[in-house]
Amino acid sequence: MDSEGRSASDACPTSSSDISVELSSLLELVKSSLLHHVAQADASNAARRIGRGNGLALTTQTPALLPPDIVSQRVGLNLAENPQGKDGLIQLVDRILHFSVNTWDHGFMHKLYSGTNPVGVISELILATLNTNLHVYTVSPALSVIEKQTGRTLAGLFGLRETYSGGVTQPGGSASNFNSVLIARHRVSPSIKERGVSEQQHGKLVLFTSIDSHYSLDKAAQMCGIGSEGVWKVPTDSEGRMSVPALRQSVQKAINQGKRPFYVNATAGTTVRGAYDPIEEIADVCQEFGLWLHVDGSLGGSAIFSRRQSWRLKGSERADSITINPHKMLSVPATCSFLLGRDLRRFRSANSIDAGYLFHEEDTLAPGPEDADITYDLAEFTPQCGRRGDALKLALGWVYYGRIGYERYVDNAFDMTSYLADMVKAHPRMEIAAVPQSVQVCFYYMPSSATGEHELAQAAKRNTEISAFISERLPSRGLMVDYAPGPVGKFLRVVTNGHTQKETMDYMMSAIDEIGLSLIMPEQP
Amino acid sequence: MDSEGRSASDACPTSSSDISVELSSLLELVKSSLLHHVAQADASNAARRIGRGNGLALTTQTPALLPPDIVSQRVGLNLAENPQGKDGLIQLVDRILHFSVNTWDHGFMHKLYSGTNPVGVISELILATLNTNLHVYTVSPALSVIEKQTGRTLAGLFGLRETYSGGVTQPGGSASNFNSVLIARHRVSPSIKERGVSEQQHGKLVLFTSIDSHYSLDKAAQMCGIGSEGVWKVPTDSEGRMSVPALRQSVQKAINQGKRPFYVNATAGTTVRGAYDPIEEIADVCQEFGLWLHVDGSLGGSAIFSRRQSWRLKGSERADSITINPHKMLSVPATCSFLLGRDLRRFRSANSIDAGYLFHEEDTLAPGPEDADITYDLAEFTPQCGRRGDALKLALGWVYYGRIGYERYVDNAFDMTSYLADMVKAHPRMEIAAVPQSVQVCFYYMPSSATGEHELAQAAKRNTEISAFISERLPSRGLMVDYAPGPVGKFLRVVTNGHTQKETMDYMMSAIDEIGLSLIMPEQP
Repeated sequence: MDSEGRSASDACPTSSSDISVELSSLLELVKSSLLHHVAQADASNAARRIGRGNGLALTTQTPALLPPDIVSQRVGLNLAENPQGKDGLIQLVDRILHFSVNTWDHGFMHKLYSGTNPVGVISELILATLNTNLHVYTVSPALSVIEKQTGRTLAGLFGLRETYSGGVTQPGGSASNFNSVLIARHRVSPSIKERGVSEQQHGKLVLFTSIDSHYSLDKAAQMCGIGSEGVWKVPTDSEGRMSVPALRQSVQKAINQGKRPFYVNATAGTTVRGAYDPIEEIADVCQEFGLWLHVDGSLGGSAIFSRRQSWRLKGSERADSITINPHKMLSVPATCSFLLGRDLRRFRSANSIDAGYLFHEEDTLAPGPEDADITYDLAEFTPQCGRRGDALKLALGWVYYGRIGYERYVDNAFDMTSYLADMVKAHPRMEIAAVPQSVQVCFYYMPSSATGEHELAQAAKRNTEISAFISERLPSRGLMVDYAPGPVGKFLRVVTNGHTQKETMDYMMSAIDEIGLSLIMPEQP
Repeated sequence: MDSEGRSASDACPTSSSDISVELSSLLELVKSSLLHHVAQADASNAARRIGRGNGLALTTQTPALLPPDIVSQRVGLNLAENPQGKDGLIQLVDRILHFSVNTWDHGFMHKLYSGTNPVGVISELILATLNTNLHVYTVSPALSVIEKQTGRTLAGLFGLRETYSGGVTQPGGSASNFNSVLIARHRVSPSIKERGVSEQQHGKLVLFTSIDSHYSLDKAAQMCGIGSEGVWKVPTDSEGRMSVPALRQSVQKAINQGKRPFYVNATAGTTVRGAYDPIEEIADVCQEFGLWLHVDGSLGGSAIFSRRQSWRLKGSERADSITINPHKMLSVPATCSFLLGRDLRRFRSANSIDAGYLFHEEDTLAPGPEDADITYDLAEFTPQCGRRGDALKLALGWVYYGRIGYERYVDNAFDMTSYLADMVKAHPRMEIAAVPQSVQVCFYYMPSSATGEHELAQAAKRNTEISAFISERLPSRGLMVDYAPGPVGKFLRVVTNGHTQKETMDYMMSAIDEIGLSLIMPEQP
């Protein structure tokens, strides 16, 4: 016991001489809580498989219903002066688990990601143990070569197989898309790095993306100084795919106005409806006008792992850069996002900066890679300095499950979408709102329809209210489904994934109908 | 065994009904390898404590010496069609550990971060198990309130205690600094989000930072469209601190030239020398000219946890934003970086975007936080959409070790710097190159000195060669120390941390001298 009143010797961070013993003890301490969390989901999933979904208390998603002040109070985090030791730690961990949604529960179909798998958990444990940084090779030799190899293999799957093709991880799809804009901006105007965005030099920069694309494209343009005025939104067809004639027209119009088109984003799997833009035809336009072709495959790029679904990405072999988020359809732990590129030298020239304290290539005669253009100091390719080893997570799952394991995830997600869509189409009180193209089913419950402008606004308001009502009540039944903007107000959007099972879809259909009916006919005796 | 030749049922990602059993089994599988990795460092650290550093083979850092092609070949990652199951997994994991530097070894003093601690590892395991996203509260209730509370408490430590003060995590210090520039840019010119950076409107934007500040400030300016011409580098005094008279002059000059100063970065702990800029006086300049004051405390901000060292951050209570990276001095696993702010409403207005599929505040009558300006949908404050729960890692260590635990880390790191600096000053063949101000000791071994311009260049070249030579040979002795640009060529830069011990410093001094002598007098009989 020291002068500050500390007594728990296991809670002194600097004195222990046998850290591996303490680590072993803490692993043991939290293991049963973590396994219990996963086992709860196992029980829910098993109950639904034998048709007992309604008979069990499937409440692993109820925390989603509680307001922040209640959760905050019950979690009871106490950032205090003195150590709370093992007891304080495990009690807090248990409360955190209790007030978290359970993404292992197949009822979680709320977002484009879902629960991970055991290898995913293990790979984060390994990264934490290694605790290093993939900015320079010297401090992360094994992890850096793994990122290089995994990035190059992924790029190869898409058909990017030139001398300098490859990929680097970024902290999320938004970051990958942002970096692609930076790299393309640098290609068209290398002076921006030094002189800033200036319309005098080349005319105002314009990028093109569909109205259904992810908001990170708008954000990227805002952040990089182009502004959202420089984001020209191209209309989509009835299924949410970019209209190529409209794109060509739009590019031509920008040129006629003296602006400088430089970048087209083709979305492979839009956020709401899952649509795949026609990459091949967009590539033709890019070629014609000399524009950078980026494919935002944050969601749908993972279809490249499936022999049945990879045709959706046809044309991506002509892309300059591609975003893929294995943390979505492939169940790799978040975040795991790659920006792949035809020529990583472009990544490097856009992102590298003189930092003599970090990069030492010029100082030493030590043997380096054959070609200095392929550095293993990966921070030179990205906006970040500090970088986690996210590639390891995709790689370990690949080793454990094989490419065919990832293929099964993708195939299952697509199959379950078809299964659910067919049920929705056949249901008397549901109306499908978009032809499913990847892993989302979008539909209204008892939609109001209208023709006049005022009536349309009323109908949209009503539809949004119904969708919100259902979405907010599903967690008490162990289900989580989000809602999103559609043609007439917001609709329900179910995202299927590699784990989704038919019985969960069946159970969800009943639950939605019950909740919906309770709103539509609340006063039934 | 199915048609694709798969036989290991444990390697089928979608079929297992008892995932918790598989998770338990995989945890068991990798546990001994991970504990062995940590135990190796324990053994090295213990050997040095009893003065046997030279007597044992301290080779946990030798992977740093191997070139990428050798590491790649020996790691032997095989991204194959078929699953390699548990055997393939554990063999690969063992090879990865073997070809990684061991940051748990106290001989790792190469970077501003070091090994983590057992609670750090545990917290990543918990995050992986929860596998969720802190973009919206609904899917991460417990983790979102923890981030809110931890951010607010941290901001409070610095004296930011207004109604809307708080903080959000960002994927690294570069990301935090970048976001601060975006927020400040939005304050001075909200139209940039829509119209892009345009010099006509307000004059060209200029930010100010010292010549010793981190390269992420240059990168931020390049990325956000201001360009490095808009980064005015302020000279430092002999100890590497920003010169305030020079700052004032510089701001005035920019105004006289019709430019638009908007942002000053005060570095709290520079990358190479660890210097703290005089925040209080810089705050006066910012107040006088109406400029955003950012404190980049990526390295040195953690001194706020120490009663003996927090005076170095005096004035930070007047900052508009502050970066702190608990993954550096506090040994929280990488990455854990916070951007703290006086008024998070500014974060939100700079970063929020209309994304109806994600944010639902307007759709529902569900009870929200009292004040709609404090949303718990944290993606509204940051450039990212997907966000990891990095705040948990700081919080769990705080609970387990107490604030005083973090204080000990900081105090130990500073104490060890003094201890080492005294030894270097007393050593006949070493020359200290910068007065230590936080946790770095920068020194030359047998420096050449010169006066004429040609001689100076020769001396710089020679000094850099000696530093590189020593740095590259230390890993074979279990030590890793980087080198960085100094007044006459690059010098060695040792970074101490919460774990560093005197005996490691003693051992390192001998090792450096032996290696240095072998270069200076290679042909001694």
